[in-house]
Amino acid sequence: MEADMKKTALRMFPYGLYVLTSHDDEGNVAAATVNWVTQASFQPPLVVVCVKADSFIHAVVERSNAFALNVLGKEQGSLAYTFFKPGEPEGNTISGELFRPGVTGSPILVSTPAFVECEVVEVVKQGDHSIFVGEVVDVGVKQQPDGRPDEATLWLKDLGPNIFYGG
Amino acid sequence: MEADMKKTALRMFPYGLYVLTSHDDEGNVAAATVNWVTQASFQPPLVVVCVKADSFIHAVVERSNAFALNVLGKEQGSLAYTFFKPGEPEGNTISGELFRPGVTGSPILVSTPAFVECEVVEVVKQGDHSIFVGEVVDVGVKQQPDGRPDEATLWLKDLGPNIFYGG
Repeated sequence: MEADMKKTALRMFPYGLYVLTSHDDEGNVAAATVNWVTQASFQPPLVVVCVKADSFIHAVVERSNAFALNVLGKEQGSLAYTFFKPGEPEGNTISGELFRPGVTGSPILVSTPAFVECEVVEVVKQGDHSIFVGEVVDVGVKQQPDGRPDEATLWLKDLGPNIFYGG
Repeated sequence: MEADMKKTALRMFPYGLYVLTSHDDEGNVAAATVNWVTQASFQPPLVVVCVKADSFIHAVVERSNAFALNVLGKEQGSLAYTFFKPGEPEGNTISGELFRPGVTGSPILVSTPAFVECEVVEVVKQGDHSIFVGEVVDVGVKQQPDGRPDEATLWLKDLGPNIFYGG
């Protein structure tokens, strides 16, 4: 398997962009931009999010067993970049972004168009990222999108011609 | 959690389209269009594909412990529709599509621009779809795409304004 070909084949998978957030009972609040996300079941509604094993957000999700995926809107590219760096919590903001606690305690970003909040039901640890399987326990949508909901979402490719996370 | 809002929030996740294929040692060859796919680790390279638990392709992947994701190209919408129905194998074709066996024995569709072939390393069965975690053992790319690789991929949204699998 040739490394460049592996990179190209895996970079053919398209992705949306999300700010993953969590809050554990030690008072840690974490937020990080992620894109390795998919729905995984209708009934019960499950989603998968893959998270870098040595990251702070990983440690917080592991302790809290809960997370929120804040779906980034088409015009929120700068927010994606903000949370490529570890989130800096201060009161009810993280890296300057206002949040409110969701039903699991996970931070729900006020500025994003939608969120999906989950309780972790299983974790697969086989690689440099863990696969968190979450059951959806709450959602929010600020405004019904005019067209397809996925057209309203910020995609990885919207960040620019050379921005990838995958390969 | 309101059902319509859940549907909208989850349909904000964008997806690519893939023909999932597998071949078990009972001689069964299966192919099905899927979209719940993500990379899940760089090292080792892992991918996740979520497959309807009561489908034929699920039974074949479970027996073979291997699969290929054939990445659909931008102009291959009709192929996506072909494999919404169970694939019909005949010799070295399935539903009329020529294939060759990959290193795992999984059918590699000759007409698709790229494939990722995997051995199953873990299965999570928590919902109406199972989460297959596969380690990438081979890939192929017919031609390096001119621009971003994900721009060359057929997206779920390309199938039309009312085609969804998710929510």
